[in-house]
Amino acid sequence: MRGSAELAQKILRGDRLSLARGITLVESTPGSAPGLLKALRPPRRAFIVGVTGPPGTGKSTLVDRLISQYRKKNLRVGVIAVDPSSPITGGALLGDRIRMAGHGKDTGVFIRSMASRGWTGGLSRATSSAVQILDAAGFDLVLLETVGIGQSDVEVVGITHAVIVVLMPGLGDDVQVSKAGLMEVGDIYVVNKADLEGANQMVTILLGALRGRPQSPSVLRLSALPGKDIAGLVDAIEEIRARFSKAPKELNLRSLRGMIVETARGNLAESLQRVSESKADEMASQVLLGRLTVEEAALRIFGN
Amino acid sequence: MRGSAELAQKILRGDRLSLARGITLVESTPGSAPGLLKALRPPRRAFIVGVTGPPGTGKSTLVDRLISQYRKKNLRVGVIAVDPSSPITGGALLGDRIRMAGHGKDTGVFIRSMASRGWTGGLSRATSSAVQILDAAGFDLVLLETVGIGQSDVEVVGITHAVIVVLMPGLGDDVQVSKAGLMEVGDIYVVNKADLEGANQMVTILLGALRGRPQSPSVLRLSALPGKDIAGLVDAIEEIRARFSKAPKELNLRSLRGMIVETARGNLAESLQRVSESKADEMASQVLLGRLTVEEAALRIFGN
Repeated sequence: MRGSAELAQKILRGDRLSLARGITLVESTPGSAPGLLKALRPPRRAFIVGVTGPPGTGKSTLVDRLISQYRKKNLRVGVIAVDPSSPITGGALLGDRIRMAGHGKDTGVFIRSMASRGWTGGLSRATSSAVQILDAAGFDLVLLETVGIGQSDVEVVGITHAVIVVLMPGLGDDVQVSKAGLMEVGDIYVVNKADLEGANQMVTILLGALRGRPQSPSVLRLSALPGKDIAGLVDAIEEIRARFSKAPKELNLRSLRGMIVETARGNLAESLQRVSESKADEMASQVLLGRLTVEEAALRIFGN
Repeated sequence: MRGSAELAQKILRGDRLSLARGITLVESTPGSAPGLLKALRPPRRAFIVGVTGPPGTGKSTLVDRLISQYRKKNLRVGVIAVDPSSPITGGALLGDRIRMAGHGKDTGVFIRSMASRGWTGGLSRATSSAVQILDAAGFDLVLLETVGIGQSDVEVVGITHAVIVVLMPGLGDDVQVSKAGLMEVGDIYVVNKADLEGANQMVTILLGALRGRPQSPSVLRLSALPGKDIAGLVDAIEEIRARFSKAPKELNLRSLRGMIVETARGNLAESLQRVSESKADEMASQVLLGRLTVEEAALRIFGN
């Protein structure tokens, strides 16, 4: 706890090494994080934007462009990139990170990748903590990038103030888009790579899929490549950020609800992971002997 | 409970309508299922095979072929197809189901789709129960088909005795394959659509990715299209089924461990869903006022 307080002080003073250490702490040892986060008392001042969408839609490039745009506005930008752990494609993802590292010498930018290994409950909780640490460290804008191919990625962006869903032409009949629940969570939808064939069609499909939503989210066509105009996207973000600046309570409550639920989900996932192999084996044997049903065993599995 | 006993009797007698009703029951009202499953006392005789892999790899066609092959061996075959809920691609998935419905007049085949809506914890539990019901109803082989694009799909196939992972050429640099944890769960890997270019390359990538596994799983190239030879796959399945017939305990313990853990996961997910909106709002307000940290709120969220 004393170590936490000291680390917190350094993070609040803007020490980058301590910031990195703090995030490593919440990523690796959830048990030791509460002390740190309590000591930090994040001001809830940072504007938190989630960027999600299927693989290959250009999220990292878009995030890279947003960093540049917001640095021009003199905002300090923190980025948490939630990476799928990927033995096969590690190279490509590493490439993304290297590309973003173009901001490496800029102390107004902090970029951190967090890996999604196995059960994602822990990741949601760690992400929520990491965002709070960036807030406490004085970052004005926090971008949270996730690969939206699973329910868990969508849940993670629930901890933000605004969600950008990045799509591209040709995704209209892609099961991922609908399965992942992306149509429910976005405040802004971007059809990226809009020079590709089928961009108009994608916009039409998108507008159709969003029709049921109570408030119509923004739908934008753009190309996030360097040199291309993304002013429309920045305007759409700024509109929500203005609302946040004027009356932060509403959006902060939304984000906090998300953080609390994700942290609770992480706690539950952890309690499941703590079930010992021997306990699971014992329960399975009891079921096989006909002494318990699967359902009864599932209720007893948390006992000692 | 009395209704459960009656329904159980009818299912045990092989009444198809009651079988369908039982599955609907475990799918929709988890609370009423324990009585039914207790009354059923499944014999743990069915051989349970999971079929998973990314969308578009031809899993449904493969399952269709396996049904035909095993009907020739005079085995009764039950199929649970876990469908992503999909407003956009509903048509395509429905097409899959219609294709499989070619077996509709065969009373030795029972096919049921279960939808994955939102949080998947409930689905895992329902799937586990549905498999037990098919076992109790006397099916010799239960095929469990899931779209392996998320961690949850992989967890679901953990309730089986054998897992077939279906891939296709060109998936070598697909993030889904690795993220979803498919490289850890398969007993048999099928590179389907093997006439397509890149089949050899996919096999090479696959063998590389599987190298770390303690026991080498089978890797097969084939085309599951009607009329093409899938004898190699049937042989690989039969090898595991022979092991199951000879000494069912080991594989039944594996499957039961999976069922117990998935059922526990479903229970946990449900307790999270039961958290009222007002409770979450209240907790978020407390955090905003600085009275609680997110972590403290997450621990209190289950109180009244």
